[in-house]
Amino acid sequence: MERESTIMKHGMRFVILPLIVCLAQGIAQTMKDTTVQKTAVPEKTVQERLGYPASARLLVLHADDLGMNHSVNRATFEALEKGWITSASILVPCPWFPEVARWAKVHPNADLGIHLALTSEWTDLRWGPVSGAGRVPSLVDARGYFPLDTPDVAKNAKMTEVEYELRSQIDRAKNAGIPLTHLDMHMAGMVSSAELFGVYRKLRDEYKLPILLEPSGTHGLPAGISVTAEEATVLRVVTMEPGVAPNNKDWLDWYKKQLAPLPPGAYQLIVHLAYDDEEMRGATWDHPDWGAAWRQRDLDMVKSAEFRQFLKEQGFVLVTWKELAKARQQ
Amino acid sequence: MERESTIMKHGMRFVILPLIVCLAQGIAQTMKDTTVQKTAVPEKTVQERLGYPASARLLVLHADDLGMNHSVNRATFEALEKGWITSASILVPCPWFPEVARWAKVHPNADLGIHLALTSEWTDLRWGPVSGAGRVPSLVDARGYFPLDTPDVAKNAKMTEVEYELRSQIDRAKNAGIPLTHLDMHMAGMVSSAELFGVYRKLRDEYKLPILLEPSGTHGLPAGISVTAEEATVLRVVTMEPGVAPNNKDWLDWYKKQLAPLPPGAYQLIVHLAYDDEEMRGATWDHPDWGAAWRQRDLDMVKSAEFRQFLKEQGFVLVTWKELAKARQQ
Repeated sequence: MERESTIMKHGMRFVILPLIVCLAQGIAQTMKDTTVQKTAVPEKTVQERLGYPASARLLVLHADDLGMNHSVNRATFEALEKGWITSASILVPCPWFPEVARWAKVHPNADLGIHLALTSEWTDLRWGPVSGAGRVPSLVDARGYFPLDTPDVAKNAKMTEVEYELRSQIDRAKNAGIPLTHLDMHMAGMVSSAELFGVYRKLRDEYKLPILLEPSGTHGLPAGISVTAEEATVLRVVTMEPGVAPNNKDWLDWYKKQLAPLPPGAYQLIVHLAYDDEEMRGATWDHPDWGAAWRQRDLDMVKSAEFRQFLKEQGFVLVTWKELAKARQQ
Repeated sequence: MERESTIMKHGMRFVILPLIVCLAQGIAQTMKDTTVQKTAVPEKTVQERLGYPASARLLVLHADDLGMNHSVNRATFEALEKGWITSASILVPCPWFPEVARWAKVHPNADLGIHLALTSEWTDLRWGPVSGAGRVPSLVDARGYFPLDTPDVAKNAKMTEVEYELRSQIDRAKNAGIPLTHLDMHMAGMVSSAELFGVYRKLRDEYKLPILLEPSGTHGLPAGISVTAEEATVLRVVTMEPGVAPNNKDWLDWYKKQLAPLPPGAYQLIVHLAYDDEEMRGATWDHPDWGAAWRQRDLDMVKSAEFRQFLKEQGFVLVTWKELAKARQQ
């Protein structure tokens, strides 16, 4: 049961996130087609609004799950410091959040967002709402933790409690002095129902922070919901799904194959960084997908000279969420 | 400030816990002196009530902080499984508590208590109330975590909230199916004020579990509080304080010197077990006392053939809290 639940959860993640919505030939047309939603369609593409040529490909190189544990923190801090990635988002309810807050003080220009969390994912290392199980009872399981899996959130969560908890997560990070650049979501939680998606948009507007969002038109968004190309900041999220052979060569090849054919536009590549060490193996022992060895391979990939050279040769412009936000403000 | 606070905290711990109250010559007299509290003084010593000779020395070999992180769990599980220690107590609010619950199911005879926690001790890995900061606001600092240090608890905590939170910790462990044998306390929190001590006794009576307690008569217990030899289950707690040279030989020698001269009676030796690994170094980086290398030395000590042989030659009878509890029921 545990394994089925895990597969289902990660099925959710990779089905929803890596949607290809605008293909090369369609983008220019979509951006200029003012017959449907005249006011919402911008005159220029994201890359143009940021001063790049229309042919540019912008890439946020993003690590999820910062704060989850020390292994994730060590790997992600190093990747940010050395420029192997450009951005990361934080799991505020996790035990190692204080280490992130301390690091952020020393690195005030780091591009950090909130990885809004309503699930706790792993079986032996778990976390619950920062606002407390008693305050948001619809968000916890019988043991007082966030449920492991996203479907349980969509099924049980009361939206007033979701709002309260997610505000608490954002506020805790702000109060710790972390300058936030964006919001995204753990395990695709915020697009698992129309109501949750409504909260996601609401938080974006209230906190005036961009949210990670892919355009409408394919499955992934809740039934009846669509977003315009303007509302979706990136054209596509690239993130690995289970099935790639677990060795560094196939790993790197997979990423290259995803990135190379992308048309002009703004993209996010999501990686999951950690060391394949005792701590990470302990947390993910029953869950090899997105587990310790997986994250070590992601780390090896982003730090490799070959991947850095590939990005250079392909002409990707590495950007942050702080920069992407400027495209929305114009 | 951080360092001063840390020193103060651990000062609290070692000042309060390792009290020598009943010396060899005094014990028999104390136990038989019925002139003060006739009903409270037993006819027999703890060791006699458990069927051992009056000359026996019983020793609970106890590890604190189980659940704190994976490094502590790995070391403590192995020590329990191999008989290097006889008992441990659990930090329920910590992120790796679920791993403890899973392990306990496979080891139903393990002697496990609750390490009642109102402090979070470390700066980068922190935890807060399982009942939530909003439910027990007097128990958290401005960031929503338990304060680092015990004096802050005694200063701010409302007893109704202390009771609620500590019941929640015990109940979470019981609900997870862990058969509990005793209660003790993180960083001497429950003896830092008369009110907190009152809650400690109340929980003992309600849950019918023995509590770790040393006899009255010396400093350590709150002003105006004293306990009888009968109420205190052990005669003395032996636990290391900062100042011992950080090498395995001096470490072992210190423990031998503490244990060898103990008179007949029941004792608890508290050790802090973990590996000196990245995870533990990350948690304790600014806090070498009770830090990663300290805990590795404790682990090396309890597993060493020399220490096992020493205990044998000295004739210590290794016992659990489950056994000690029987002495109180007669």
